[in-house]
Amino acid sequence: MATINHQFRLSSRPVGIPNAGNWSYVEEPVRELRKGELLVKVQYISLDPAMRGWISDRKSYIPPVGIGEVMRALALGCVVSSQNPNFAAGDYVSGGLGVQEYAISDGNGIFKIDPRIAPLPAHLSVLGMPGMTAYFGLLDTGQPNPGDTVVVSAAAGAVGAVVGQIAKIKNCRAIGIAGGPDKCRYIVDELGFDAAIDYKAEEIYGAIQKHCPKGVDVYFDNVGGEILDAALSRLARGARIVICGAISQYNNTGPIQGPKNYLSLLVNRASMKGMLVMDYQSRFPQAIREMAGWMAEGSLKQREHIVEGLEKFPEAFLMLFTGANFGKLEIKVADS
Amino acid sequence: MATINHQFRLSSRPVGIPNAGNWSYVEEPVRELRKGELLVKVQYISLDPAMRGWISDRKSYIPPVGIGEVMRALALGCVVSSQNPNFAAGDYVSGGLGVQEYAISDGNGIFKIDPRIAPLPAHLSVLGMPGMTAYFGLLDTGQPNPGDTVVVSAAAGAVGAVVGQIAKIKNCRAIGIAGGPDKCRYIVDELGFDAAIDYKAEEIYGAIQKHCPKGVDVYFDNVGGEILDAALSRLARGARIVICGAISQYNNTGPIQGPKNYLSLLVNRASMKGMLVMDYQSRFPQAIREMAGWMAEGSLKQREHIVEGLEKFPEAFLMLFTGANFGKLEIKVADS
Repeated sequence: MATINHQFRLSSRPVGIPNAGNWSYVEEPVRELRKGELLVKVQYISLDPAMRGWISDRKSYIPPVGIGEVMRALALGCVVSSQNPNFAAGDYVSGGLGVQEYAISDGNGIFKIDPRIAPLPAHLSVLGMPGMTAYFGLLDTGQPNPGDTVVVSAAAGAVGAVVGQIAKIKNCRAIGIAGGPDKCRYIVDELGFDAAIDYKAEEIYGAIQKHCPKGVDVYFDNVGGEILDAALSRLARGARIVICGAISQYNNTGPIQGPKNYLSLLVNRASMKGMLVMDYQSRFPQAIREMAGWMAEGSLKQREHIVEGLEKFPEAFLMLFTGANFGKLEIKVADS
Repeated sequence: MATINHQFRLSSRPVGIPNAGNWSYVEEPVRELRKGELLVKVQYISLDPAMRGWISDRKSYIPPVGIGEVMRALALGCVVSSQNPNFAAGDYVSGGLGVQEYAISDGNGIFKIDPRIAPLPAHLSVLGMPGMTAYFGLLDTGQPNPGDTVVVSAAAGAVGAVVGQIAKIKNCRAIGIAGGPDKCRYIVDELGFDAAIDYKAEEIYGAIQKHCPKGVDVYFDNVGGEILDAALSRLARGARIVICGAISQYNNTGPIQGPKNYLSLLVNRASMKGMLVMDYQSRFPQAIREMAGWMAEGSLKQREHIVEGLEKFPEAFLMLFTGANFGKLEIKVADS
């Protein structure tokens, strides 16, 4: 009897905030494997802001998900059966498995993970793309020096929380911008940030000025919009801005809001640079080892926000844009 | 009998485009020199877009010109008398002498120039701040590689014309954006740019796409606004944007127009970096020697737009913002 798969496919391109009508929920049997393929039972699916870009037809770094295709997503699970010599049943793997219960892959973009070094959800957060984004974005693009003031937006999010903790490990001051008192307390009390700014309650320009009396040396931007402008207004000489994302702008139906304070780059001889984590793939193993070490010694903590059940995907995805999740957002599809 | 000086002083801060009412024209005798001072008879005054910033009270890299103070300007002239051991009567000097016929200086920020290596006006253009800005902005911040496509705005201007010519010297393709057929012909036919885009006549996005089929590797921005956005839309992977100025925005009475296409930095792993020429002062002598060499061999040409008479300052200054000047704008105050 064939195994039954459930999937979310893109049925139409969203305009603005995606809604349930943009997805179709499909049930179909899993087909036979061909030579070179493996079948993965998906356990956790990562929900990331970048997914909003993948379903828009703006020119980007990868082609958009086509209408009718399974929604692209990073996910992890266990190999059920394999016709690929690089993978065997029982292996744990991670990669672009999509928003579905079972994924057939030819092995491209799929890599084995070691479930002993950390709980499974951590492999999609600190040890997954968000963690790698934080690690290379901060260290390679941001180039923090000891004593620097590092400011990060979406600081309680999957990337931001790691950015701030690595900044502390590197002897910087870490200031996080997050929404709401719970997230602000969390990043200071549990993650060890030096200060938090609640952008929903505080006047952001004044708050950055207050917490960064010597200016901002590194600003790691996940949000764009007003918060990017506020950070630009307080740059230190020679500051580095890492452009990692702009979640405040992703559902815009009008033009993107450009940073009107960008001439601060000139006044302060500062730079603004974009980074994409996929450029660093060859260095992931070394970074994962270092990050796992920091986790083991307690200097790098993580928190996931797990939503149970594949069928929750459409509503769970929206949490990214309202800030309703608290920690790395993942869907748990199956226990084992 | 005392020497009579004429000066332009700032009488009020302009809102938007400066007008005659923002200046007062003052006649007063030149006072006696004190110990350590020198008296310079000003011959040429440089008019630069940066001067608009100096009379605004926006936070910037130097304090604004105060109300009632002589308008700040780079200028050159001949030392008439000196109580400063570093300067003697007959020396030619350049520096922040101001918009006036005679300047008294304590020597700070004043340096000698060699009138034999180039005509006097060139010491305020190719061998002056605009030339140094082009040299260090392109080579140090832009980091062009042979074969790169280098795009520069305000390409017939004092900085832009030099940027394009140095790009050619460094074996890059040079594409200039300028206003009107005369300037476009000039940069291609006389300065050797590979192509020109007339932003007043052509649709700028399409024109950049046409002339940069492999994308823009280095964009040297003097203008900001729509042209910066158009360049952002066509970046090559790893592109460098040099933020040198934003003349389209300097007379804005509303907020600056931020670059709405800035997320192209992320998609293309590109950077946008500000530069200020004053940071490179210690390297000016070496750069001036190299630039004078290029001038002597004919690979670096220059053109000045000389307005005669100090009293023309208010109207001449406005030419910078309408694009009415063709070449480096200077006021000739005196022959010798």
